[in-house]
Order: sequence, then structure tokens, then C-alpha cells
Amino acid sequence: MPLTTQSLKLTAQSPKPKMNKKELLKLIIKKQSFLCVGLDTDITLIPQHLLKYPDPVFEFNKAIIDATIDLAVAYKPNLAFYESMGLSGWASLEKTMKYLNQFKGQVFTIADAKRGDIGNTSKMYAKAFFEHLDFDSVTVAPYMGEDSVKPFLEYKDKWVILLGLTSNKGSNDFQFLETGNGKLYEQVITKAQQWGTPDQLMFVVGATHPEAFKHIRRLAPDYFYLVPGVGAQGGDVQQICQNGLSSECGLLINSARNIIYASKGEDFAQAAQESARKTVGEMANYLSLFSKG
Amino acid sequence: MPLTTQSLKLTAQSPKPKMNKKELLKLIIKKQSFLCVGLDTDITLIPQHLLKYPDPVFEFNKAIIDATIDLAVAYKPNLAFYESMGLSGWASLEKTMKYLNQFKGQVFTIADAKRGDIGNTSKMYAKAFFEHLDFDSVTVAPYMGEDSVKPFLEYKDKWVILLGLTSNKGSNDFQFLETGNGKLYEQVITKAQQWGTPDQLMFVVGATHPEAFKHIRRLAPDYFYLVPGVGAQGGDVQQICQNGLSSECGLLINSARNIIYASKGEDFAQAAQESARKTVGEMANYLSLFSKG
Repeated sequence: MPLTTQSLKLTAQSPKPKMNKKELLKLIIKKQSFLCVGLDTDITLIPQHLLKYPDPVFEFNKAIIDATIDLAVAYKPNLAFYESMGLSGWASLEKTMKYLNQFKGQVFTIADAKRGDIGNTSKMYAKAFFEHLDFDSVTVAPYMGEDSVKPFLEYKDKWVILLGLTSNKGSNDFQFLETGNGKLYEQVITKAQQWGTPDQLMFVVGATHPEAFKHIRRLAPDYFYLVPGVGAQGGDVQQICQNGLSSECGLLINSARNIIYASKGEDFAQAAQESARKTVGEMANYLSLFSKG
Repeated sequence: MPLTTQSLKLTAQSPKPKMNKKELLKLIIKKQSFLCVGLDTDITLIPQHLLKYPDPVFEFNKAIIDATIDLAVAYKPNLAFYESMGLSGWASLEKTMKYLNQFKGQVFTIADAKRGDIGNTSKMYAKAFFEHLDFDSVTVAPYMGEDSVKPFLEYKDKWVILLGLTSNKGSNDFQFLETGNGKLYEQVITKAQQWGTPDQLMFVVGATHPEAFKHIRRLAPDYFYLVPGVGAQGGDVQQICQNGLSSECGLLINSARNIIYASKGEDFAQAAQESARKTVGEMANYLSLFSKG
């Protein structure tokens, strides 16, 4: 094979280091943080002065990332916000991911997409998020069961973040149903552990159910949880840490609106940094538990 | 208001007639069909000669639509197949929807997206599919409950197609769990009827569970079901019709691979038409039940 073909191939395969559990924990210890910044970027809510740029959504994301990169271990673009703008939204997402993927080994990326379909379709979603956009992980809905989740798990060093117990009011509609062998969300968290190891599978556990964290930690002691619902939705960092931390941290706490919209003025990036720093400060007390381990 | 502004506004609001239940039934009777063609368009599977076009996926879809428009009442692009190609896939999807939306009142369009998230996020997905792409309906996953579904139902004359009992093997993992008040999928189908009327809500019921149709028809007598799983997945049209038809038809049977990949040669559109005609022929016996009603 001629050298040029080989080097092209290497570029196409993306040289960024894979973000496995060990690397993720190193990152958490290095940054003294398990904060995930939610990039729920809404063009109607970003500062007016950005609208002069050809891609205001990307400019906003780039400024937020630059301001918080030392504080956040993860970034989570929320796909709905990009899709709502059609083609230009998808372009902003691609640019954001290209930018994030330049921070080699310094961030963990999450496609908050809540996908899941029959096998041959989930395989296409996996291609979209793991190959085309090169995310480290994707959120997946469990309703359709094992063959809807497996195609995502077939990627080495990529992660599925499966909905366990969500943060919204509607989590009470089905997730708490008694199944004769635990509640539905308990069944999901228990069964999915047969599909994926703690090195490739995490669970979404909403911050609005702090009372459930101790119990869930016993159900899945070695798994990471992505915790949405802090801030705007009312969840509390302290309670989550007290009930949810594992010996390897095991938590990524997401905050979106509280950080990215901390100010709507020209100081938005600075304000985002301050808000992120405050949340990371709250995490500090708990980091000593495992940073020496 | 000057006349020019008004006419511009009319154009922007899309002049196509709304596809409510009455209109859908009229369409079924007119075409003597309740066939939905699944546009699971995979660039690696379409005929080679299309690759010379700037947008081969759109060219393929357009040819399939042209060949089947008299036979199919609905078209269902499967989002994963478009997302897997990134920006160019999203562009092909937009072009396909613009083309489909020219067939005013002649087709019902389904975004097979399996979305669902917390309220403010589902609202953005609804904007993407109902406003930006102007689909008539979108498939939604029920795990996150009422507030994840409601934002879609707030659009007049647009539809939610909620996952009830899916066609894949993994449907056995959670959907059949006994909840003390029926199985999980029965709970979903029962509860969701409090959220949406038969004029705005349908259920996905997989063709691979023909034995469940009679029972589901009793649970939700007046609702339409979107039935995937016929053909490649093994479902049988006759059994579905015998068990699932209502007095207002109440079924949209989807077929994708069997129709769109009926031939991989230059005669693919002709072959798709023949395959669609065969499926519609199977439906004919059952249409007499309600076409006079």
C-alpha cells in the first residue's frame, strides 16, 4: 500500500486517544471535577452580539468550551436543539464536535440523543454518532430492549449511556411500575448489566430522585451515572454526591442552563466559567474520597 | 397589511391540507391501500447507476415515490439512515420531505425518529419534525412518560406515533413485563390514551406479534396502529388484517426493504412498484369491510 493512502487512512480514523473508564477517571482526578456541561444551545437565548457571525451557535459553543475546558470533564450537546434548526443546526453540531475533538484526551463527549431502534437501525445511529461525529458516547432509550442497544456496544472504547431513572415528572408514569421483580427502572439497570461492562455502559439517573441513588448504587456499584436535572430542574449536587459516589467517582453531573445562560450579555463566557467553578467547588469535598485511591 | 406580505405568509405557512384522521381514511379508501413505504435508504444498497447524481439518496427516494405514489398512503423516512451520513444525509432528508410535501393531501408522512426527552427538549424535537421538516407525524418512545410526549401533541393536525409493542426480539425484554395492572406495553397503550385522542395519537404495534393484535384492538379500539415488521422481519399481512382492522381501517402497514430493494438494478423503481402492488393486493380483501362505511 502506498504511503499516501496509509497516512490518509490514519487521519480518517481520528488520532484522538480513546476515552475508556481509566482515562475518564484520570481526567476527573486531574481536573478535580466530574462536571458535564450541557450544550443545549438555543439560538433564541444566546447573546445578541453573536448573531453577526455566520454560525452563531458554533461561536457560542466555542466560547463556552474555551471558558470551561479546565473545569468540565464532559460536554453534552443536546441533539434536539441542533435538529430544530435543520441543516444549519446539523452543521453547527458537526463544527462543535470537530472543535471538541481537538482537545485530545481532555474531554469526554456525550451525544444526548436518546436513540434506540431495531438492530439494523440502531447500527445506523451508532454510525452517525460514533463514526461520523466521533462522539465518545450516546444516550440510548431502553424500551426496545437488548438488540436496540447492542449495535452501540459493538464499538470498542465507545459508550452507551442508557436511560435508567430520568429526571422529569414523566419518569413516574412507567419507570416506577412494579414488575414483580423490582420496579421497571431497576429491571432496566439490572438487565442491561448483562449487555455491557462498566467500561462501555453508563446509566442516566436523574438528580431529582436523590433518595434513589443509594439504592441504585447497590444495584450497579461499578457503573458511571450521568446525572441530569441539577440546577433548572431542581436537583442538588450535595445530595447526589452523598448518595451516588462510588470508589471510582462513578458520577458525571450535568448542568446546562445554569452554566451556559448564566449571563445573556457579552460576558456570557466569563459568567459560564464562574457558574461552572461554583459547581466544581461543591464537588471538591467529595473528590478526596477517591482521588488518592 | 399589504397583499404581498399576506401571500408570502401563506407560502411560508405551507398550503398543504392537514392530514387528520378523516382525511387519512379518505385517502385509504381512494387508494384502496393502507400501505406505508419505509424509506430506509442506505447509500451502500441503492443501484450503482444513481451514484452519478449529486444527491443519489434523494434521486432514489424520488424514483421510489414516483413509482409508488398511487399505491402507498404513507411514506416513512427512517431518520437513522440519513443521520448516518451526516450533513449530506440531512440535506437528502430535507429534499425528500420537500418533494413529498408537494403531493398535497395525497400522502401521510412519518418521521421514524423514536424521539422523546424532557419537556423543553421534546419541544425542540417537535419543532424539528413538525415545523422545520413539516412531517405529519413522528414516532416517539414512551419510557420518559407524559411530559416527554405532550409537546408533540400540542401541534394541531400533527400526530404522535407512540411505541406500544415493537417488532424486534428485544421487545420481549421489558414490554412484556407484568406490572400488576397488565403488561408494560398494555400500560403504555392504556395510559397514553389519556394524553392524546385517536385524531392525534397512533401506536406502533409490530407485525411479529400477530397474536397480540386482537387484544390490543380491544384496548384501543379507535386508534390507528403503525405496523412495522412485515416482510424482512417475518410479519404477515393477512394475519395482521384479520386481527387488527377496525371499522375505520385503523392500520398502516409498513414495508421497507421488500419494496425499496426489490431490485438492485436499473429497474429498481419498477420492481418497487410491483412489490408494492402485490402487498396492496393482499390488503384488497379487507378493504371492503370499511370502504362502504
